[in-house]
Formats: sequence, structure tokens, C-alpha cells
Amino acid sequence: MTECKNIFAILDELKENAAQINDDDLKAVEKLITEANRIFIGGAGRSGFAARGFSNRLMHLGYTVYFVGEPTTPSIQEGDLLIVGSGSGNTASLVSNSKKAKEQGAKVATLTMFPENTIGSMSDAAIKIPGETEKVKGKGKASVQASGSSFEELCWITYDAMVMDLMKLTNQTNEDLFKRHANME
Amino acid sequence: MTECKNIFAILDELKENAAQINDDDLKAVEKLITEANRIFIGGAGRSGFAARGFSNRLMHLGYTVYFVGEPTTPSIQEGDLLIVGSGSGNTASLVSNSKKAKEQGAKVATLTMFPENTIGSMSDAAIKIPGETEKVKGKGKASVQASGSSFEELCWITYDAMVMDLMKLTNQTNEDLFKRHANME
Amino acid sequence: MTECKNIFAILDELKENAAQINDDDLKAVEKLITEANRIFIGGAGRSGFAARGFSNRLMHLGYTVYFVGEPTTPSIQEGDLLIVGSGSGNTASLVSNSKKAKEQGAKVATLTMFPENTIGSMSDAAIKIPGETEKVKGKGKASVQASGSSFEELCWITYDAMVMDLMKLTNQTNEDLFKRHANME
Amino acid sequence: MTECKNIFAILDELKENAAQINDDDLKAVEKLITEANRIFIGGAGRSGFAARGFSNRLMHLGYTVYFVGEPTTPSIQEGDLLIVGSGSGNTASLVSNSKKAKEQGAKVATLTMFPENTIGSMSDAAIKIPGETEKVKGKGKASVQASGSSFEELCWITYDAMVMDLMKLTNQTNEDLFKRHANME
Repeated sequence: MTECKNIFAILDELKENAAQINDDDLKAVEKLITEANRIFIGGAGRSGFAARGFSNRLMHLGYTVYFVGEPTTPSIQEGDLLIVGSGSGNTASLVSNSKKAKEQGAKVATLTMFPENTIGSMSDAAIKIPGETEKVKGKGKASVQASGSSFEELCWITYDAMVMDLMKLTNQTNEDLFKRHANME
Repeated sequence: MTECKNIFAILDELKENAAQINDDDLKAVEKLITEANRIFIGGAGRSGFAARGFSNRLMHLGYTVYFVGEPTTPSIQEGDLLIVGSGSGNTASLVSNSKKAKEQGAKVATLTMFPENTIGSMSDAAIKIPGETEKVKGKGKASVQASGSSFEELCWITYDAMVMDLMKLTNQTNEDLFKRHANME
Repeated sequence: MTECKNIFAILDELKENAAQINDDDLKAVEKLITEANRIFIGGAGRSGFAARGFSNRLMHLGYTVYFVGEPTTPSIQEGDLLIVGSGSGNTASLVSNSKKAKEQGAKVATLTMFPENTIGSMSDAAIKIPGETEKVKGKGKASVQASGSSFEELCWITYDAMVMDLMKLTNQTNEDLFKRHANME
Repeated sequence: MTECKNIFAILDELKENAAQINDDDLKAVEKLITEANRIFIGGAGRSGFAARGFSNRLMHLGYTVYFVGEPTTPSIQEGDLLIVGSGSGNTASLVSNSKKAKEQGAKVATLTMFPENTIGSMSDAAIKIPGETEKVKGKGKASVQASGSSFEELCWITYDAMVMDLMKLTNQTNEDLFKRHANME
């Protein structure tokens, strides 16, 4: 049995970065979630997979939730909420989604490294998540990992931290969530 | 300008096969759709893409619809309907889905070449669609196309034929459908 | 047994529209396919599902093929080919993909109702497929179906018509294709 | 600025669980990766999204990689490697995939909570990852999170820990990986 140095190096990096995440931002996004008629989740690439994981948990929690781009996802309307994860805050397709959501009168929330960029600027709530990507080199501390990985991991964990809050807010247990878990797969 | 012989050969084959499709079967599936609380759509491979296209139209029509395997798809329950397309009627994952749906008290409908096989046998309604696949060679007439293509094309068209009926049944126009069409993509 | 009038109405519509498809256009796209290092397939919505079906057949035929947006899809480079299906020829994400492909020195081919629009204008080969969509009402003949369906069906069939040619060109049988068919699903 | 207690609670849980992960197991999987002709990645649900993220990184690294279930994924053959993530080690579709891979003469590797279960038992290499799921309650320590989350997060991080090793093994930088990063999305 050999301890895995890489995993501990990743966890140390995440802990350091996590100190910069403001819990008030999570609470603001959670408030939008509880107030929304329907929740639309968007994301591209690896942070998009973290977002898909979150869409799964929101379904478990009983919310009406859609992932942008799926065939069963309807048009977004006033009263709805769009949550997008975008490291740069400038991902073209997600910028386009966010603009459309705002035009329709829906709210927008985002997880991003740069809340000051395009998506964050038009968002009703933004969670700033530190990280480093190849497109924005040198703006953060050098990561022990491939570019983007630290942001993506911390997105996943931040989504799960919100799930912990939402379980308490809605007074639900693992059993409640599991009843909604897909029984065909 | 040269006419495309292949396309006409395909359309001729589809017309010949279409003569064996019983409209009463479509009407039976449509009845289950209109009676269901929620509709779950399943399918694998190329006929799965036809099924995804159908799930999109059911959303356009205003039904509560989920594609099996997506993260936002909840557990199936009594009162729900599962519609699966399976050429052989024996696709392992779709057999498993159909069994689970029946166990839960949901209804099952299928589009298949062999209604007498596993999935058709446990279905509440089945649309028999002629075709030929590599796994079931020699049971049908030789196709001018790659194995399976004729079944897959006719699945797509049969789904769309049901959409025509459902538009009339629910008294909806193209404009009604377009309002629900995804506005973020 | 009642014949299904809707299916025959669809097939009649497709046959009428098919008369406007130029086989020379298919041959031009097939030539690009056989000359490409790697083939990238793109598409959104329902015509995107037809495109996914085609990507599956190109894999069966032994080509190196990727669907745009999948996590295993690499960057497009000179010598590669992008094939996109877009009814309007103006779908934002597909316009963006096509521009990028051209910038990189890759070729672009398209299936579209309007070869004169953005994507067609920058394409090395375009197959014009008649149809009617809600966004481009009144430019074509009224369809018996929901907007877009006729184009989507004819895309699927046009892709399959090219598969017929490519099987002959590469001298392959159903058995050859089936050997490459996914054995895990 | 309020520190996020949930995120730190998750990171503490991951650090505690990480102590049980054997780096020798990661090295064994990495060896299979470097020896394989082609790599097939499988996974369902939320741990499937972590697996998709890994498939993306393997593409970045220059490996020939496929995600099971995608239309461009061919049949697995001798000399190939299948890597599946399955908390329980008994997920029906992944068991079926693993059996098929072994039958074909391919190797199988897995990330799982229970290497002694079905998938682990037939694997050439297994990474044991601690966790707790609703289906296997009481076998591990109670998690601060929803069932499964801890396993899923640690899968993502373990995949990324292997990426760190593989970058070193293949002597590649972020720049090398970024060149292969999808330029159309």
C-alpha cells in the first residue's frame, strides 16, 4: 500500500483555492434555485460534465430541471433560472445562452473564474471559483495539474456543497433523493 | 442536375415496407401517450437517434417527456409510459428498462420488427415495422441498404406520423409547437 | 389491418422533394469523405440526430470519424473534413464550427435547405435538400408535417444514400460493416 | 466573505478517504493505458460524467479513446483496454460491457468501491475508492454528503491524478495537451 501523492497534492490545491470561495455566493445561487419555476443547467467540456452531475442531483431533489441541448429541454421563460459553469466566463455558446435567458426575463447564475467577464456581468448571482486554464495563463497561481482541472474539480465540489444546503433547506434525506433516482439504466 | 437513384430506391423500399404497418397500432400507442402522466423514451444506436427525435417532438407538443439515460430523467412510476424502439425486440438494456417499467406499474409501448420477441411480449402496445438487420438476416426481404437502415428510417417516419395525429388530437399548430422549441442552443 | 395514411403522405412528400436533390452534390461530398484524413460530423436538434446516425455508419465503414461536441473529439486540422447539417444554413454554433474548420485549413460540406446562406457559402460542397421550417416559413411548399420534419427525414435518407455509394466505393458488405459495429452497448 | 463550511467538510472527507487509495493500483491502470492499442471508457450516472471527463483528457494526451455508447465508438478487440467506473461493481450495463471486453480478449480496469464484486473480479487492474452509496448503506462510514457523492468526487480526482502521471510518462506539457483540445465547440 502506497499513498497516492498526486491525489493529496490535488486535495491540497483544492483546499487552498477553496479558501477564496465565498459561501454568501453559494447562498445567493441557492436562493435563486428555490425561487425558480424551472432550472436550466448549461456547461461545455469537462466543467459541463460537472454541471450534468449537478442537474442529476437537482432532479433527485425534486426540482424541475433541464440540461441545455437535450432534446427534451423546452424554451426558457420568465420565472426560470439558467445556471452555467464557464471558467473564462466568455464561452461563446454559454454567452449566447445567457443572453437569451436574460432577454426572456429568466435569471442567470454562474460558476466562473472571472465574474467580471461576459457571463458574470449579466448574471444575477456568480460564484467565483479560483483556477487556471490554458486560455487565461498567468492570471492565477500555477497548478500542479493540467490546465483547467482545478477549476473543474472545484466546480463539482461546489455543486455538491450546494446540494448539502438544498437537502437541509427542503428537509430531505438520502432516502427521499433515492426514490427519484433513475430506476431504468 | 442528376436525380439520385439511391434516394428513390430507399423511398420505394420504405413505401413497400410501409404497407405492412398497421395504423391501428399507431393509434393504440397514441392513446397510451395521451393517457400517460409522463412519457419515457428509450432507444439504442441509430434507432435510438430516431427515438430522441421523437422525444423532442413530444416536448414540442407539451408532454412531460424524458429520455432514458439522461441525468435529468427521474424514476418511472405507475401511470407513466415507456416507449422503446428495438429492431430485434431483444436489446438487453431495453429489455431491462421494459421489465423495470412493468414492475413499477408503468405501461410499455414499442416499435419493433418482431412484436413476438421479449419487449413486444411484455408491451401494452406494439407497432410492427418491417426491416432487416444483420442479427436477423434472412427473416425479411433483402434490403437495398445497409442492414438496419430501412427499419431505422421507417421508425423515424412512424414517429413523425404519430406527431401528425397528436397535433390534430391536441388541436395544435406549428406555431404552438415552435413556442416550446428550445430557444437556447 | 388499416394502412397508415400519414406514413404514405410523408413518403409522397419526400418523393416529391427528393426530385430536387442533385446526385452530383452527393458525389461531391462522397469525394471529400474519401479524401479526408478524418471526418468531423456536426448537427443540432433533430437534424443533429440524423447526423449522429451518419457518424455511426461512417465508423462502420472504417473511417476515422468524430462527432463535434463529444469529449473524445480532438481539434480539427488541415486535411480533415467537417460535414454539418443545418436547415437554415445559419445555425449559430454550426456557423462557428464551419468558420473554425475553414480557418484551420479543413474542408466543409453541408446538407441544407439554403446553400446560399452562411454555411453553404463557405462550404466546399453542399447538398440542397428541400423542406420547410418555422424560421423560414413561406419559402417552400406547405408541408403535411410539423415544420422541419420533411428536411430532417430527407437528411437521414440522403446520409443513407451516401452510405450505399460508400459501401460500393470501398467494396464492403454488410458483414464488413457489422464487424465494426459496437459490441458493447 | 464567508468561508464555505460545506466545501471544507467535503475536502476533509475526501482526504480521509484518499488515505485508503493505493497508488500502486493507479500505476497498474496507467501501465495498461500505455500498453493498449485503443482505450474504451465506460460509466453510468454521475460517476459516468467523471469518466467522460477522463476520456477527454486521454484524447488531450493523444491516446485513441472512445466512450462506450457513442455512435463513433467501434467494436472492442484484443489489445484494447476498457476502463469502467462503478461504485457497486455490479452495474448491469457495465458488467455486460466488461464481460464482452474480456470475451474479445481485451483488458479491463475499474474504479470501484468493491473490487471483490462482479466487475472487479474480472478486471486486470482495479483501483479501490472508498465511499458510500444508497445501495450499499452501512458498509462504509456515514458521509456528510448525499450518497455516492464522495465516491464520484474521488473518482474524478483519481482520474486527474492519473493524468498527472501520464503527462510525465509521455513527457507532455499543458501546451501539448491544449493543441489537441477541441477547437470547435
